[in-house]
Amino acid sequence: MYAVIMAGGSGTRFWPISRKHRPKQFLNIFGDDPMVVETCNRLKPLVRDEAMTIVLGREHLEEAKNLLRDKKVHILGEPIGRNTAACIGLGALYSEYIGCEGPAAFLPADHFINDVAAFRKGLEEAARIAAPGKIVTLGIIPTRPETGYGYIRRAEAFANSDDIRAYHVSAFVEKPDIEKAKTYLAGGDYFWNAGIFVATPGTILEEIRRYLPGLYQGLERLQRTLGTKDFEREMETVYDELDNISFDYGVMERTDSPVLVIPCHCGWSDVGSWASLYELRSRDYDADHNLVEGETLLLDCKNNFVTERSGRLVVCIGLKNCLVIDTPDALLVAEIERSQEVRKVVEHLTGSKRVKWL
Amino acid sequence: MYAVIMAGGSGTRFWPISRKHRPKQFLNIFGDDPMVVETCNRLKPLVRDEAMTIVLGREHLEEAKNLLRDKKVHILGEPIGRNTAACIGLGALYSEYIGCEGPAAFLPADHFINDVAAFRKGLEEAARIAAPGKIVTLGIIPTRPETGYGYIRRAEAFANSDDIRAYHVSAFVEKPDIEKAKTYLAGGDYFWNAGIFVATPGTILEEIRRYLPGLYQGLERLQRTLGTKDFEREMETVYDELDNISFDYGVMERTDSPVLVIPCHCGWSDVGSWASLYELRSRDYDADHNLVEGETLLLDCKNNFVTERSGRLVVCIGLKNCLVIDTPDALLVAEIERSQEVRKVVEHLTGSKRVKWL
Repeated sequence: MYAVIMAGGSGTRFWPISRKHRPKQFLNIFGDDPMVVETCNRLKPLVRDEAMTIVLGREHLEEAKNLLRDKKVHILGEPIGRNTAACIGLGALYSEYIGCEGPAAFLPADHFINDVAAFRKGLEEAARIAAPGKIVTLGIIPTRPETGYGYIRRAEAFANSDDIRAYHVSAFVEKPDIEKAKTYLAGGDYFWNAGIFVATPGTILEEIRRYLPGLYQGLERLQRTLGTKDFEREMETVYDELDNISFDYGVMERTDSPVLVIPCHCGWSDVGSWASLYELRSRDYDADHNLVEGETLLLDCKNNFVTERSGRLVVCIGLKNCLVIDTPDALLVAEIERSQEVRKVVEHLTGSKRVKWL
Repeated sequence: MYAVIMAGGSGTRFWPISRKHRPKQFLNIFGDDPMVVETCNRLKPLVRDEAMTIVLGREHLEEAKNLLRDKKVHILGEPIGRNTAACIGLGALYSEYIGCEGPAAFLPADHFINDVAAFRKGLEEAARIAAPGKIVTLGIIPTRPETGYGYIRRAEAFANSDDIRAYHVSAFVEKPDIEKAKTYLAGGDYFWNAGIFVATPGTILEEIRRYLPGLYQGLERLQRTLGTKDFEREMETVYDELDNISFDYGVMERTDSPVLVIPCHCGWSDVGSWASLYELRSRDYDADHNLVEGETLLLDCKNNFVTERSGRLVVCIGLKNCLVIDTPDALLVAEIERSQEVRKVVEHLTGSKRVKWL
């Protein structure tokens, strides 16, 4: 099995630890390895290093090469971010180039997966039914009426000789309001769309040829320079002209080809905010539900996320439901429930005299 | 008029800005000059620099000399802190030595006074009635049922030819509980004891001779070496044997001599905690009642005290009633109402591996 790991995008949700030049996927926000490294490690029993292609922004190429220096993975730097359609197209093209004839997994680099065995089982099953012409998604079985994720609605079961539990997809559904999310959760026909799917590169490229012909022409031009010194320069020319469009919107929501979904219960999260990271790391809580890292002293504090990454002493007294993120050049103190508003901080800093803190 | 400014004591209530070697009286916690400098400046129209004696801990001598290098004040370093009786005795002795024959004001270096004119008027009036044998205190007219201060209970009016409003003191009263504090406030016979009084040095020394004979003997020994190279060494010997006792307890509560009180309404505070400093600085609030200093960004925050003294960017989101004190090597985040518990932090650090943060 091959894999395309999407590691593009710049981080704003985990400021001040994530910065313009160090987005979330390159950070060890779980206290262990950087997320992109963890994503590679998670795939390892299924995919050889040499069969992994990591697509990311060119500005992060050096960082990624450094983090992944022990792995023989392929790393491609996009000259400019053009959303997931371009990223997946490029990954499919490159996977074919390095020898992929069967199925490849396409997945983001910055997600959290609690039950790795269940996740791998889902990918394996997806690979077994991902015959040419079929796209198989992982559908995360929802555990709460989440309004922050898109959903996948299933149709009838997909009959297969391996007895794999899979369904036809009847629709991709936008982020719902809370009432809809509750009915989705109760009904049992909806899964969270994690943006993880399995298909042969040929299938992906054929879909792009039909639904995103502009992108397809760009990929054809890139194909001619693959493995030559002209590849990088051609990428710049091609990417400059590409539309910014997601693969879900450009292909998955339009295609007539069979799209299947495999229900997966693997403790998945897209780790979209400090608050979700705090919730995911419950196993690290102290007796008062504080998640504490580094040189700290907490007196009568409850339900806080306090992380010291500055070499200083961080002292909290009587604090509740707060986020204290201490880095060498910037400090964030916020109500944990409002950690989504970290984006506003980044907006405030952008274009101000304070760009050095971006 | 002469003055003795008591600047002893090590700071624990304003950690992390105040440290063992930089207590509150040497800090500019109001954003202007250090408190000891402000205390000198406040007295200046009444007292020449050469008539001011500042008594402090020897470990702070260099710091004080540096802060006061532009002033021709006298600075005495006690080898060890022995509470206010020793400090006041030494100050009285030294004031006599440098020529004080009339009244001297004795006052702490680390208090806040909002209405300086009213304060000076109180001291001037006190000086006018402080004939030999009399001790005149300033009684701060209470504005709330404060349980953190000691009180002075007045008796009958003190008749004087200058028509100065003054009373005999009937008792010094310990910090009350809230119910008592409310009756004190309602009755009008009680004032806050600010530890500020006026008397001739001869009167002070005579009181000490009667009520604290051990201290008096020590002061006699010191007197013999005043102005000689043996003074410092003699201080070490004498202080080593002195009792640790306050002037209020050792003298004021026992004396049969006339003790008078002049009511004063000067916006006084002993600035005992971060919370009281926040309240005192209300003129510096922004529209959301935040007191903000330094490089900061606050989004939807109310009633906070945020001070950046580290060169970093401090960002707060959705924070309410909190204290964020950011220094180069330590950070404090606390509920503002619990800022008294900063002392507990200092206790925790004392004797731990973290003494470097004291």
